[in-house]
Amino acid sequence: MAAEPSAHALIAAHRPTLDQALEAIRTRAYCSPHPEHPKAYGENGSLDAAAGKAAFDALLGTRLDLGQPGTDDWTGAEESPYGIALGVTYPHADPDVLLPAMRAGQPAWRDAGPELRAMVCLEILKRISDRTHEFAHAVMHTSGQAFMMAFQAGGPHAQDRGLEAVAYAYAEQVRTPAAAEWTKPQGKRDPLALTKTFTPVPRGVALVIGCNTFPTWNGFPGLFASLATGNAVLVKPHPRAVLPLALTVRIAREALADAGFDPNLVALAAERPGEGIAKTLATRPEIRIVDYTGSTAFGDWLEANARQAQVYTEKAGVNTVVVESTDDYRGMLGNLAFSLSLYSGQMCTTPQNLLIPRDGIRTDAGPRTFDEVVADLARAVDGLLGDDARANGLLGALVNPEVKARLEAAAGLGEVALASREIVNPDFPGAVVRTPLIVKLDGTKPDDEAAWTSECFGPVSFAVAVDSAAHAVELLRRTVRERGAMTVGAYTTDQDVERSVEEVCLEESAQLSLNLTGGVYVNQTAAFSDFHGSGGNPAANAALTDTAFVANRFRTVEVRRPA
Amino acid sequence: MAAEPSAHALIAAHRPTLDQALEAIRTRAYCSPHPEHPKAYGENGSLDAAAGKAAFDALLGTRLDLGQPGTDDWTGAEESPYGIALGVTYPHADPDVLLPAMRAGQPAWRDAGPELRAMVCLEILKRISDRTHEFAHAVMHTSGQAFMMAFQAGGPHAQDRGLEAVAYAYAEQVRTPAAAEWTKPQGKRDPLALTKTFTPVPRGVALVIGCNTFPTWNGFPGLFASLATGNAVLVKPHPRAVLPLALTVRIAREALADAGFDPNLVALAAERPGEGIAKTLATRPEIRIVDYTGSTAFGDWLEANARQAQVYTEKAGVNTVVVESTDDYRGMLGNLAFSLSLYSGQMCTTPQNLLIPRDGIRTDAGPRTFDEVVADLARAVDGLLGDDARANGLLGALVNPEVKARLEAAAGLGEVALASREIVNPDFPGAVVRTPLIVKLDGTKPDDEAAWTSECFGPVSFAVAVDSAAHAVELLRRTVRERGAMTVGAYTTDQDVERSVEEVCLEESAQLSLNLTGGVYVNQTAAFSDFHGSGGNPAANAALTDTAFVANRFRTVEVRRPA
Repeated sequence: MAAEPSAHALIAAHRPTLDQALEAIRTRAYCSPHPEHPKAYGENGSLDAAAGKAAFDALLGTRLDLGQPGTDDWTGAEESPYGIALGVTYPHADPDVLLPAMRAGQPAWRDAGPELRAMVCLEILKRISDRTHEFAHAVMHTSGQAFMMAFQAGGPHAQDRGLEAVAYAYAEQVRTPAAAEWTKPQGKRDPLALTKTFTPVPRGVALVIGCNTFPTWNGFPGLFASLATGNAVLVKPHPRAVLPLALTVRIAREALADAGFDPNLVALAAERPGEGIAKTLATRPEIRIVDYTGSTAFGDWLEANARQAQVYTEKAGVNTVVVESTDDYRGMLGNLAFSLSLYSGQMCTTPQNLLIPRDGIRTDAGPRTFDEVVADLARAVDGLLGDDARANGLLGALVNPEVKARLEAAAGLGEVALASREIVNPDFPGAVVRTPLIVKLDGTKPDDEAAWTSECFGPVSFAVAVDSAAHAVELLRRTVRERGAMTVGAYTTDQDVERSVEEVCLEESAQLSLNLTGGVYVNQTAAFSDFHGSGGNPAANAALTDTAFVANRFRTVEVRRPA
Repeated sequence: MAAEPSAHALIAAHRPTLDQALEAIRTRAYCSPHPEHPKAYGENGSLDAAAGKAAFDALLGTRLDLGQPGTDDWTGAEESPYGIALGVTYPHADPDVLLPAMRAGQPAWRDAGPELRAMVCLEILKRISDRTHEFAHAVMHTSGQAFMMAFQAGGPHAQDRGLEAVAYAYAEQVRTPAAAEWTKPQGKRDPLALTKTFTPVPRGVALVIGCNTFPTWNGFPGLFASLATGNAVLVKPHPRAVLPLALTVRIAREALADAGFDPNLVALAAERPGEGIAKTLATRPEIRIVDYTGSTAFGDWLEANARQAQVYTEKAGVNTVVVESTDDYRGMLGNLAFSLSLYSGQMCTTPQNLLIPRDGIRTDAGPRTFDEVVADLARAVDGLLGDDARANGLLGALVNPEVKARLEAAAGLGEVALASREIVNPDFPGAVVRTPLIVKLDGTKPDDEAAWTSECFGPVSFAVAVDSAAHAVELLRRTVRERGAMTVGAYTTDQDVERSVEEVCLEESAQLSLNLTGGVYVNQTAAFSDFHGSGGNPAANAALTDTAFVANRFRTVEVRRPA
């Protein structure tokens, strides 16, 4: 068939990368095939910084025609958190035309088998990687991330997460052999003998519902897991963060077509302002898989209503750090200050509640009272963000007016230990840039409870005074069990406290970072090694990435016949 | 700890069996560690036929005290389909006491790790295997299966399915290493280095809701998959088929205690007549996993309402065999006759609709008209069941009065091609034994459609006249898509027809048996090699057994700390 030469070339080009990823998910050692440094790009067909910026600029104000069937209109109204109107319009789809067209290519995609599908996915990732600089600007101007973070998290780290999903999907599909001979002895009679084939088959069309803050990082795992397992994938981006996923869809369609497959296996569903098409699409009978990142309310709605589909959700959680004692006080303060500041705390993994004994903590710099710890942390944040250029580079911009309103309201929730400051971004005067707010609360006061038991998404954290380490552990357990958590952190030099925190995390299914004082932060996870979420507490029903994330996206059909 | 010596002994005893099972699920070749032949039992501590029968007899009329906490009453009213009142009573549980007691042992069970948990599960299976003869009578007198089928399907085949689930659960839990060192280069600076641990943790208490027809075969996979992944397991048997699962729970509790674990990790929840505790239990917050085999109505209810749990269901389906042509007419008729007769068609895998072109089929014995094929099949069934002793040995008894009522009503649905006969069981005069009914329907008549598009569970099949092979394939697709199917069969010598049927099964996720004419039947699947169900059509949301069946019963908790 026509795809043959292309298949060989793809395998030659990408099989080593797949093997590297398969080895990494087995050992969970460090692995990042996509380079993190901006200067690593510019050769072998990849865009350098200038070319990437030019490519992004050229997109502004244009119509991104993806050549999709069933396009009945053009829509798009993205406003960058940095104050630029992107002016890009995208195809608006008639699902009655688009969805059947997406299904048409599925049999050939299924027949391609797990390896060739993985290779095409890796070719898509390669082409995305080549345009990392362009993606960085697209992610920056939709999420509000600062450039360097948009580059890394929206580029190589997102691509790593996509590759990780492909590796899990491939491994799972080839776990059952494609064929088997089965011979059952029958004593003196001839044995019974059957020839069996086992074929991974897709569930149907998968829907990826993108989020505003991490369109690629949170979108790629579901997209690639579904595509690699044979499903067509419809991408419904957040209306404020269309461009990075529209570029992704364009590249995927081109790579599919070049490999001899139907480009309609991947398509975009952009929506008109206020249209709310996610509900309509997620409950269509053709949609058999949904990946979603966003609010708990809509995640719960999807789980309850998209009953014809496998639904994978990442929702809100309340992340806690227990601060009990440390042998590196300075390192702890610096590490926490960075975690609270990065992307203005607009990460699902940013710590919110810092549980600190009201009698203070033991440190290598001597004992510190609750008030001292909070004041020292406030100073650490101030120090980190004292230079406006550095602050802009860390904080990025508030992603939307709701975050700004929440931040402003949070100052009234208790005693302000660190006020949020406004910072001017000289390059983008329209950007809303704010430093983190730290509010003191009391873990025994009923009046304070509503604040620290709810997610306050944005640059807001609560220093919560607790009675003891045991009290901290109890509040941690309650928070994870009732509110969920993407991350838990703890600082302690006490073996018993460490064990108690670990036991809570094991019993309530939360991912724990202990005593981070260096250049790894509780809110960052590394593909191939760290799980993002656990799928076992209310913050998310799936983890990135484990077998459960891929194994139910396809089914295995057996055909048996006499040998 | 106290369990140490026991752990070594368990590993020495059972690790080879686990390794054999792990190899079998990788190759999907023949594997059946539990002997099928009744005479294989009686040595090395296993009960022989007489001892097994005596053990069963000794149970009748007794109270089966499992020593469970929270037992507030005794209940049980099983009537054998063979006309014997079993008179066994079982603990009735107060879930407010029992469920917390079941959770208490989970941390130690979690800390035992995947290998030791697998070994304890295999020890449970070994002790069950030793009592296979006793289980055979218990299964026979609750399901109505004939003795030999109760022995094999309820004994070794069920045990094989349990072992298969343990193997999948073990493989999945050790896929991520228990620990990893992660080192990320930082150019000229020191690398970032973390030590990470990864622990499989249970979801909570699992609930197994047993069925009437295959209490062990359908109960073991969920039970062992959940237990092997660290969960406590509450077994809620069908009120008509308590004994086999109560014996299972008793053995599991003994084996757990002997290995140094809390016996309350496995418990029984028998119910009073009409109590309907499955709904109450399945929606308790402690219950995080539900396995269910039974009606579509209740399976759908569980999926919609037990939202706090992972729900695995096997529901009703409409199984179809396309009869288009054959080069072994006699073999085909014999094979189909056996499939229709085995256990009076009371298997979720028994063919119901035989789609046969109205113009007839090509065979090695010359062309046969629709009427001839149906008449020949009726004769084959009659021949197979002509001898009463043989008929009793194949048919067993009707499991409950609903099946009998359904059979009687079905004779009015169309022209009867083969009437159901009553057969006397000389050993058990109270048994209701009936031969299969075959009714002719027309696949183009709207009046007939209600019959062949609904599951008619029991010894009823429909010979449905279709216009052509293409028409058969179309009806097959509609049936699988809308009604679900546990099995699909086809007889054809035509490559195009074979491809069409195969394509339907791939697109609609159904397991296909082609041209079976010998000693393998469409309604039988072999553990380690055949998938039971696909999990991709309305008949079941899970397959026995694949990774998806085990991977979400546990979560992996990562703890990372500076190296």
